[in-house]
Formats: sequence, C-alpha cells, structure tokens
Amino acid sequence: MTLDFWFDFGSTYSYPAAMRIEQLAASRGVRISWRAFLLGAIFKSEGMNDSPFNIYPARGRYMWRDLERVCQSEGIPYRRPSQFPRNGLLAARIACWYSDASWLSEFVRAIFRANFQDDFDISDASVVARCLTALGQNAAEVLARAQSAESKLKLRAQTDEAARLGIFGAPFFMVGHEPFWGNDRLEQAISWYAEHTAQSILSPDVAR
Amino acid sequence: MTLDFWFDFGSTYSYPAAMRIEQLAASRGVRISWRAFLLGAIFKSEGMNDSPFNIYPARGRYMWRDLERVCQSEGIPYRRPSQFPRNGLLAARIACWYSDASWLSEFVRAIFRANFQDDFDISDASVVARCLTALGQNAAEVLARAQSAESKLKLRAQTDEAARLGIFGAPFFMVGHEPFWGNDRLEQAISWYAEHTAQSILSPDVAR
Repeated sequence: MTLDFWFDFGSTYSYPAAMRIEQLAASRGVRISWRAFLLGAIFKSEGMNDSPFNIYPARGRYMWRDLERVCQSEGIPYRRPSQFPRNGLLAARIACWYSDASWLSEFVRAIFRANFQDDFDISDASVVARCLTALGQNAAEVLARAQSAESKLKLRAQTDEAARLGIFGAPFFMVGHEPFWGNDRLEQAISWYAEHTAQSILSPDVAR
Repeated sequence: MTLDFWFDFGSTYSYPAAMRIEQLAASRGVRISWRAFLLGAIFKSEGMNDSPFNIYPARGRYMWRDLERVCQSEGIPYRRPSQFPRNGLLAARIACWYSDASWLSEFVRAIFRANFQDDFDISDASVVARCLTALGQNAAEVLARAQSAESKLKLRAQTDEAARLGIFGAPFFMVGHEPFWGNDRLEQAISWYAEHTAQSILSPDVAR
C-alpha cells in the first residue's frame, strides 16, 4: 500500500504539504506515491474557470492570511506569489512522467519553492530547467521527454483518475479508498496508513 | 476581548465546533461571544443558491465522510441528517436575540444535537420549543419574542456584519481582526486569543 499524494504546482496548500510530507512519511515508515495532476481541469469540469480563491474574493483573502500563518508555524519560508494560480503544466508533466525517479521529490519541492518562495514563473521552461540542472539532471532531455505525446497523455489520464476518485482540491491524500483533503489532514492520513498497514500485517484476512 | 464564534445551525462543521468550544474556551480562560448568522444569505450573495456541498457533489461526499471521522475522533455522537442543509432560521433568531442569556450555550448545543444526532427538523417550531422547555424556558414566550420585528432585524444585521467581516463559511472564529475558518482551526483561535490577551496584559500599548 502507498499513501497517494495528489498535488498541483499552482495550489497554495499543496506547497506546505509538499515541503512536509517526505520527512513525516519517513518517520512513520509510510511509502508515498507522488501524483501530480491538473486541478484547473477539475475546476473546469465543475463549471469554474478560475481558482475558487479568485472567484470568491473573501475565500481568497482568508486563504492568503491562513497560508502565511501555516507556513510560519511550520517554519516554511514563504512569499506570496505575484501571480495566482500559476500554470504548473510543464512541471506536472515532468512530475507525472518521472514519478518514480530518485530525484522526483527534490524536483517537486524545487518547483514549489520557485513558486512560493522566489515568486518565479514556473510555467517558464527556463525556470523549470534551472531546477532540473540544480539536481544534476539533463534539463534538455527531461523537458523533451516530458513534452512527448505519451507524457502528455499520461498526465491527462492521471488527472482523469483524480476526477474519478472524487478529488476536487489539492493537496489530497488517498490511503486505499480513504480520502483526506488538505494540508491540515496530512498527519491524519499518515496515521491512517500506519494503523491500517499494521492491521494488515497482523491479520492478513483484513487486508484482502 | 472576546472570541467571536460565528455559526449556522444547518452547517455541518459548526456542529463539532459548537459541541467543543465552551469547554475548550473555559480551560484557557477565553470569553466567547456567540454569533448566530445565516450562511445561506452569504452563499446567495456569492451567487450560490444551495450549499457548496450540494452544488459540488464530490465535495459533499468527502465532507460527509470527513464529518463522520471528526465526530468519531472527538467522541461526539453523530447521525447524518436526512435533509441538508436544514433551515435554522427560527433557532438562529433565538440565538441572536438571546445571545447573552445564561442558557444560550445549552440551547445552541440542543439545536445542533437535534439536527445532527436525532435527525429532527429544526425548522419545526415544535422541535425548537421542546429544546427550550427542556432547558426550563418558557418556550411560547421565547418563540414570540424571537419572531418580533426587532429580533428579525437583529439577525439580519448580524448576518450583514458577518458578510462585512469577510465571513464566507461556518464555523468561523474572529479574535479581534484575526480570522479562523473551520472546526479544524478552533484550537488555533483559542491559542491566538490566549497569547494576545496575555500580551495586552503585559504591554498595554500593544493592545491599543
């Protein structure tokens, strides 16, 4: 079993979750599956052409204040991006195509930091390339591969899967069929995983 | 300073917050101001004619599962209401008009229990009357008073105030100008109050 971590690079609360999840998961022996998807496509299917934080200004104002508090209390550097939401399509294609790469989690954090610490435009290929190069990857090769037809299809299929699973926001965590929405629920998702994995070791019948 | 607790009797996450707040606040010396309002009026001003949990089915499905988990982990009895959202107008008028009554917090919990434990129709005056009678109140008198023109105006003004404050959901907690949204943020709101009250005792200038 894995804890499926669904995230979108433009999503504000995905940022603290992405910065926290690997360390938390390791401390409890939880295996993460990194699942980039396009939240905008889900919003569109619900009839929204923008983030609800932009459509409903009171929600947006609150979210920015709350995000600032969350990052502060977690010790995560944060600067409000001058553009929201940023288009994370290119980075998401990379994260989806290379989801099992050893450098994937570092890449995810690098892109989130670019958006939410450095206020860089993560839709810009040169920004993404810089993140890859800093991780010792061949940026040109990775970018070409991520823009291939099969890579584009893979991210589209993964976003369709998110919709099928009932995912409507990010970050979202799935442990088996158990859904957890929001950075606030990360600890609970990890505990759920730990408890249910322990159970399946003790009584194999339950796991089936 | 008070911690302003904004709630709507039909709102699902207002239920665990209402059941928890008084004890938590007492343990930290926090004064609560009980602020009933009509969340539906706020949704309407945002262009929504129903709860977002009904408008967006995936959000609704998740919320019901999550609410069940929240109540379970807090030891709060819960049964999913057969109707959602229920119309809490009458009960809100009472809670608004009698916001300083000694029996108010018990009344609030009684109405929430009727909705989320007993699956009673809280828009029914006889259900509300039963809650009042059980608290030793003269139900006929309270109901008549709550339906007076001035009482109706008071709730309308209080709902307008919620909108002015940027409140877009329930439960919502305000500590001075600091906003906290959701049952998940109750502990944080109480800590914020405790810290900032302590600060204003130590350095009166800060409080001004």
